[in-house]
Amino acid sequence: MSVDKTNIRDAIKDDLITIVSMLADDPLGQSRESTVEPLDQNYLDAFAAIDADANQLLAVVEIDNVIAGCLQISFIPGLSRSGMWRAQIESVRIDKEFRDKGLGQVMIEWAIVEAEKRGCGLVQLTSDIQRPQAIRFYEKLGFVNSHAGMKLELDK
Amino acid sequence: MSVDKTNIRDAIKDDLITIVSMLADDPLGQSRESTVEPLDQNYLDAFAAIDADANQLLAVVEIDNVIAGCLQISFIPGLSRSGMWRAQIESVRIDKEFRDKGLGQVMIEWAIVEAEKRGCGLVQLTSDIQRPQAIRFYEKLGFVNSHAGMKLELDK
Repeated sequence: MSVDKTNIRDAIKDDLITIVSMLADDPLGQSRESTVEPLDQNYLDAFAAIDADANQLLAVVEIDNVIAGCLQISFIPGLSRSGMWRAQIESVRIDKEFRDKGLGQVMIEWAIVEAEKRGCGLVQLTSDIQRPQAIRFYEKLGFVNSHAGMKLELDK
Repeated sequence: MSVDKTNIRDAIKDDLITIVSMLADDPLGQSRESTVEPLDQNYLDAFAAIDADANQLLAVVEIDNVIAGCLQISFIPGLSRSGMWRAQIESVRIDKEFRDKGLGQVMIEWAIVEAEKRGCGLVQLTSDIQRPQAIRFYEKLGFVNSHAGMKLELDK
């Protein structure tokens, strides 16, 4: 297996259980996700919303036709910084069998190229302070830890 | 003037110069924005992109029909956290004549209600570490400073 032989493509509905399984297979994710099949309708609705929105890009990375990771990019128009578009990366996950092989770097570098293609002036993401290794990973790729990432959970 | 008499509404194109002036009137914003009229086409294009996107909400707050502040909310669908939508707040600014009157709190609380109306499970934002007062302001409103907000500027 080589990360030189990766294929990154748009996710399709049939990938959904694999993606949700990757989101769930994580110390923070395991309490937040459910991989019981059939998948919760909320996942199907979310996938449909992403798929219908030209400014959302959900991608999977494959190695030898096996899904090894996923990420989502949101392209966000804004007035700040002279009307600059920004690309926001979310839900980056790598299947545990494919970790520590440089695949994360391949995916983020791919996302940066996608952002450039769309004319974005900034790529941004937030990383949980409980994941210091992830923060260092992004710093090595050139991201600057310049902002406080603040979250307010709403009662549903 | 009372913050009880505020009116928050969708921004229209005629508000653009006022909004850009607020974005520019800021230690970080002054080097990033240009208020020369006619406004740079990038601002007009960004406004058109926001206006055309049902998941973007650019709002202004008025007091006695005078624009006193602005903010943008991006509604972002995602698979994480059981297919949860999130609302992201960006470009919050208050005209300097209207600061320290509680208007920021009115605007953020309004944004939280908008997020709830759209079924979001989370409201998020990033605040520059160079603005510790802003970070404390959001913490008082219930936001948790749990994430590193990482940015990568792209050459254009």
